[in-house]
Amino acid sequence: MAVARPAVRGVALLGFGTVARAVARRLVEERERFSRDFGAVPELRVVASRAIEAKDTSFLPSGVVRTDDLAAAVARPDVEIVVELLGGIEPARSLLLDAFARGKSAVTANKKLLATHGEELAGAAARSGAGLGIEASVAGGIPVLRALREGFAGDRIAALRGILNGTCNFVLTEMERTGRAYADVLREAQKLGYAEADPASDVEGEDAAYKLALLARLAFGAAVPVSAVKRRGISGLLPCDFVYARMLGRTPRQLAVARVSPGGVAASVRTHLVSKDHLLAKIAGPFNAVEVSLAAGGDFVLTGRGAGGDPTATAVVSDLLELARSGARALVPPFGTATAAPHSAPAAGDGEALPFALRFVVRDRPGIIADIAGVLARHEINIDAVLQSPGEAKDALPFVVTLEPVEEEKLDAALQEMGALPFHVVPPAPFPLTP
Amino acid sequence: MAVARPAVRGVALLGFGTVARAVARRLVEERERFSRDFGAVPELRVVASRAIEAKDTSFLPSGVVRTDDLAAAVARPDVEIVVELLGGIEPARSLLLDAFARGKSAVTANKKLLATHGEELAGAAARSGAGLGIEASVAGGIPVLRALREGFAGDRIAALRGILNGTCNFVLTEMERTGRAYADVLREAQKLGYAEADPASDVEGEDAAYKLALLARLAFGAAVPVSAVKRRGISGLLPCDFVYARMLGRTPRQLAVARVSPGGVAASVRTHLVSKDHLLAKIAGPFNAVEVSLAAGGDFVLTGRGAGGDPTATAVVSDLLELARSGARALVPPFGTATAAPHSAPAAGDGEALPFALRFVVRDRPGIIADIAGVLARHEINIDAVLQSPGEAKDALPFVVTLEPVEEEKLDAALQEMGALPFHVVPPAPFPLTP
Repeated sequence: MAVARPAVRGVALLGFGTVARAVARRLVEERERFSRDFGAVPELRVVASRAIEAKDTSFLPSGVVRTDDLAAAVARPDVEIVVELLGGIEPARSLLLDAFARGKSAVTANKKLLATHGEELAGAAARSGAGLGIEASVAGGIPVLRALREGFAGDRIAALRGILNGTCNFVLTEMERTGRAYADVLREAQKLGYAEADPASDVEGEDAAYKLALLARLAFGAAVPVSAVKRRGISGLLPCDFVYARMLGRTPRQLAVARVSPGGVAASVRTHLVSKDHLLAKIAGPFNAVEVSLAAGGDFVLTGRGAGGDPTATAVVSDLLELARSGARALVPPFGTATAAPHSAPAAGDGEALPFALRFVVRDRPGIIADIAGVLARHEINIDAVLQSPGEAKDALPFVVTLEPVEEEKLDAALQEMGALPFHVVPPAPFPLTP
Repeated sequence: MAVARPAVRGVALLGFGTVARAVARRLVEERERFSRDFGAVPELRVVASRAIEAKDTSFLPSGVVRTDDLAAAVARPDVEIVVELLGGIEPARSLLLDAFARGKSAVTANKKLLATHGEELAGAAARSGAGLGIEASVAGGIPVLRALREGFAGDRIAALRGILNGTCNFVLTEMERTGRAYADVLREAQKLGYAEADPASDVEGEDAAYKLALLARLAFGAAVPVSAVKRRGISGLLPCDFVYARMLGRTPRQLAVARVSPGGVAASVRTHLVSKDHLLAKIAGPFNAVEVSLAAGGDFVLTGRGAGGDPTATAVVSDLLELARSGARALVPPFGTATAAPHSAPAAGDGEALPFALRFVVRDRPGIIADIAGVLARHEINIDAVLQSPGEAKDALPFVVTLEPVEEEKLDAALQEMGALPFHVVPPAPFPLTP
């Protein structure tokens, strides 16, 4: 079974940031391994990036074309696979559509583009018999999309829970470890390169919502618009939240959750208080994890580095190898595999009852608990316990009320009413208790 | 993009135990999902098992043939894919070879057969253009073989560490939780169905060695004979081992480890003392986990149910769907992808230095530590610390000596010499400290 002459496929790299440089390096350095183990070699023929002349491309063989003309790179006749690492919607979308129109396959790490234009791109790829590799778009080096599309295909997926944003997970684990305030820890994350100068997309849950929309599309075959993902960022978390979480045997984790419900797919990105014994509570620092709950086969967790040049490059090159090895059709465009029409529209609230902790910070005066308990009682929500750690300031007194399982519509209505009470220093914050 | 008429492929099921029944049930009940989401339907046409007439097949449609003639089931012209769930070498091997000779594809969960005859089977499949699905053979529902073959293809795999035997992991976590003796906990595991009546293959590490050999073949392209896997079972563990592990901030875990070394692939199955902070230390009860260390991209862990009817059925049906969807060649026979000749023979010891804990149980008398320290010194092995919990019996006194990192060849020689000393109640037990 000696391997015949390997199939060599020309590759164009669009973009030349951290991930692209790691991809380029492997394509150049690991030809022999690819040829030996896969009988296929994705060969770098062109790198295209704005201001490419200002970038260090000295590690590339001289035969690799450097250009700042992205469209010309896609159009080159010696390019069979286009790797899009530009980010953003345009010009990435147009360049990929042009590649497919030319019968070329593509690999992309662009979660935002896929979450918003995935159907369009997959449709264009399918019409021209091209492949589309998207493993790098969610959770970096963790092969979770492949697992959802193929590995768990034999069972129905009931729910997904993920730590999909390394910035949030780093900030939360550092707040827990050090007791420091959110703004402090965020600055440290920025210094360490774990958070962007403008961290809004990460800390407000937008980044995770794009990723969750993609995961849900593969897991459930349902189109979940990012706007339908219920979101609550981490910027409102206080050091006291970690103290109360510990009193409850839990730890705060920003979880992206999608679940099949009678009304469709319910999706959210917010801070849960996770039981200390649960594996997701052990994922510390800038890591990602995805828990997949199967209808029959139980729960599975996949975890590792979800961002960074090298882990993301692993996913890109894995897709490149599959395309180079098996021809264009190797990677089934993932948006074309399920029903032509999504199973159902996402459900805003789906009637599932969850236990919650509500954290309040109030200017202390008599009757506060009575007022809050009154609102909850009117909404038929049962209190489980009231926790207050001793020795807090009277003018900004934090305490926590835990609730028996309650439907979210009910809780949202009660929160709105409670929020109007006059004694809050910050708005009441709800945390689902998981699991 | 409406899906055209689905491809229907006839399936024969060989064996009718727990896994086979779970597979049969899904093939019967989930036709609509398979057709809708994959455009392909693996259709159960025959179940073949010894004494099939004594088994409950009432949930199968009347059109499904029941037979006790395994060979005839494989030969049927309406069968395109054979699912082998018999276990053992024969007749499983001959039946699969016959299927390939007829141009049929196959799915198997048979780790022993694959670890010993994988090359032969994959070669036969490749020659006739057939596919061979093996995901179910290791770690049940965890899609780890797919991850090794495809998901991590873009990076080099440096090392694997796995909890591959749920029986061992259940016994160790129960010994830790309850402080009870090995034999006690094993009996409980047998009662709960987590251990076989004859537990030798599980507790002595044979089962994990087969799985590790398969993982190493996919990860490194190297043929690792099961006989080259260094093994130490869990039957010699004592309750005191858990006490000392805790004193060291660690927990005992039976780990299967394979690692690329200068001399080849070093492979072992034995009890490590794992740092409490490591994710593998959090895998409790009858679960499996595999940690994959990539050369560039860092460490990844995949975990979930590694045995049982439903999780294993998920892997079988996932492979069936891939074969039904993409034709016979979908699953590259995994033993044919790497070099025709394995990269190198496995290394018995590879010169890597690891820290160890040595546990002794002795009849106490003066000079024991001096004797042991003397042997270690002669072998140029440095002691890190000596631990002894107070109040132990004089006639069976346990204590632990931790060592600075030491090459295994050196340690093995020292252990042999120490073992000949006259004061041991049980032979000294070495535990690598990980990580």
